Amino acid sequence: MPTIKDVAKYAGLSRTTVSRVINDQPYVSDEKRQCVLKAMEELGYVPNSSARRLRSQKTETLAVLLPRITNPFFSHLIEAMEIKASQWGYQVIICQTHESEQKEQDYLELLRTKQVDGVIMTAVHNDWEVIESYRECGPIVVCNENIEEAQVPFIYVNQEEAAYDATMHLIQQGCKNISFLSGDDDSNVSAYRRSGFLKALQESSLPFLPNASYANAIDVNSGREIFRELRRLNHPIDGVFTGSDEVAAGMIYEAIKEGVRVPEDMSIIGFDNQSISMLMSPSITTVEQPVQDMGEKCVEVLIDQIEHKHRSVREDHVFEHELKVRNSTFQEIALVNS
Amino acid sequence: MPTIKDVAKYAGLSRTTVSRVINDQPYVSDEKRQCVLKAMEELGYVPNSSARRLRSQKTETLAVLLPRITNPFFSHLIEAMEIKASQWGYQVIICQTHESEQKEQDYLELLRTKQVDGVIMTAVHNDWEVIESYRECGPIVVCNENIEEAQVPFIYVNQEEAAYDATMHLIQQGCKNISFLSGDDDSNVSAYRRSGFLKALQESSLPFLPNASYANAIDVNSGREIFRELRRLNHPIDGVFTGSDEVAAGMIYEAIKEGVRVPEDMSIIGFDNQSISMLMSPSITTVEQPVQDMGEKCVEVLIDQIEHKHRSVREDHVFEHELKVRNSTFQEIALVNS
Repeated sequence: MPTIKDVAKYAGLSRTTVSRVINDQPYVSDEKRQCVLKAMEELGYVPNSSARRLRSQKTETLAVLLPRITNPFFSHLIEAMEIKASQWGYQVIICQTHESEQKEQDYLELLRTKQVDGVIMTAVHNDWEVIESYRECGPIVVCNENIEEAQVPFIYVNQEEAAYDATMHLIQQGCKNISFLSGDDDSNVSAYRRSGFLKALQESSLPFLPNASYANAIDVNSGREIFRELRRLNHPIDGVFTGSDEVAAGMIYEAIKEGVRVPEDMSIIGFDNQSISMLMSPSITTVEQPVQDMGEKCVEVLIDQIEHKHRSVREDHVFEHELKVRNSTFQEIALVNS
Repeated sequence: MPTIKDVAKYAGLSRTTVSRVINDQPYVSDEKRQCVLKAMEELGYVPNSSARRLRSQKTETLAVLLPRITNPFFSHLIEAMEIKASQWGYQVIICQTHESEQKEQDYLELLRTKQVDGVIMTAVHNDWEVIESYRECGPIVVCNENIEEAQVPFIYVNQEEAAYDATMHLIQQGCKNISFLSGDDDSNVSAYRRSGFLKALQESSLPFLPNASYANAIDVNSGREIFRELRRLNHPIDGVFTGSDEVAAGMIYEAIKEGVRVPEDMSIIGFDNQSISMLMSPSITTVEQPVQDMGEKCVEVLIDQIEHKHRSVREDHVFEHELKVRNSTFQEIALVNS
């Protein structure tokens, strides 16, 4: 591979001049610039990106931390982020934490070691003071969470209101014994959803059923298992807030196998309006989050901080959720799904 | 942020000695090494990764090129790759090509500019001679394709045999007018599948129906559209090879809406054994590829080439596919799906 030295020799110019052209710096005549570019092309010289990056102190790379890419909510979010980032000339590294506090910290080290220019966290597993210590190394934007004490940009929907709306819908359909599922009991999202869930129960004078409350409801298989566990309870359950379309789909799959009618015997509500929620029979009532808009906003806010080298204080970008009523909670009429 | 100079001053040693310790080089006494490490720790010095990488000429980063991350086949493949890579201390950059030849080349430039140590391509959109020109810049491994003239490692299932088996299954169920769908008419996977499909028809003396053949069958929505187009044909179709569980799910969704019975009026077969194939009613007969094993093998082969700085000649790692018979093609008995 040719080096800067080779280019300089070929062009009959100094290495400083060649270096100035490569780094797009001033004080080089157009004639010399053309001469260097021609030499680079003829020798097939390509600037080493590590060297260029070392000089510019930029990697043009963003890291997105997420629990797991196989959750369609995250793959759609990533897709929107990646398209937006690539329009700005940035690459996206995807880092799966699998909800591990240690892995989350390992990936945040990418900021400290200057391997990325900024980080988007789509979930937060460590205490905020741990995250905070990485902020001096580069900008962090948080998506899909809302941590009150943190002074960074947050992009999210109001999970408390979303869970409240979903639970009120179950109650309006006549559910009185409602199970609450969540993906990760320690997460902020789960805490807000639980709070909205409890608020709806309280306003309707319905009891919270701790025995029918499960964490780790994350995918189709956990939905199937939890359905079987719910059936073993003495207490009959007539409604489930799942927090996930995949969990809801797994529950409906088991319900059909067991001859439990959805929604007549049990109403089940999902979250995220993934394609599975439309495709299941019965189709799944769910809460839509504007994933694409949220993903794009994260990248915009982060790149703005990187390019203008500023750290914002607290910034809230709250997006609207929407309840999509389908057949897993509502049997009155045949609904046409779009 | 402290620099090497600061560390040297604090430790009372030369910058050369500090640099040797950082880069794990010999000729430093244990005593001095301890002294430098202590100074680094007390000052909070972190080696700049671009600098370290520039020295080692390694980025410890792999790029995985894929059409779209929202296809669950790819998100599961990526998950397996990312877990394996992280065990070896490598990061994974995910690059979505959206089937664009230009984007594919843009991402291959990552090799030339030394931003990644190696590339895994999970689809190939350019002619191989274009790809070949990037090989001098670093190792390339191809997953999910088999390009005869290419001298790189290939990890794949035999798509021709898989499509043959799936089509023979449709024929054994009594289908006589079978539609062939594919995701990308230009891709090698599509060509092999088409060849297996044609072979099964030929052996069974059945005609190929060019009017009932569609490319761009990539997701639920395209499955829905193609179903509606098939219904507008004068020729009644009683079997569909979709090449995708999501496409099959979209078709079944429309079939139910239109009162077309699956499999009685039309048998539909998917591909990949994604969770949607088990969850749909009727459940979807499909072809399983061992995604996790394939993803892990790709990373193993690539890292082996990176770490031992060798470029293999042709290498074939062929994995077995498996036909999963479910209700979208088979109505005789109630099948229990696992």
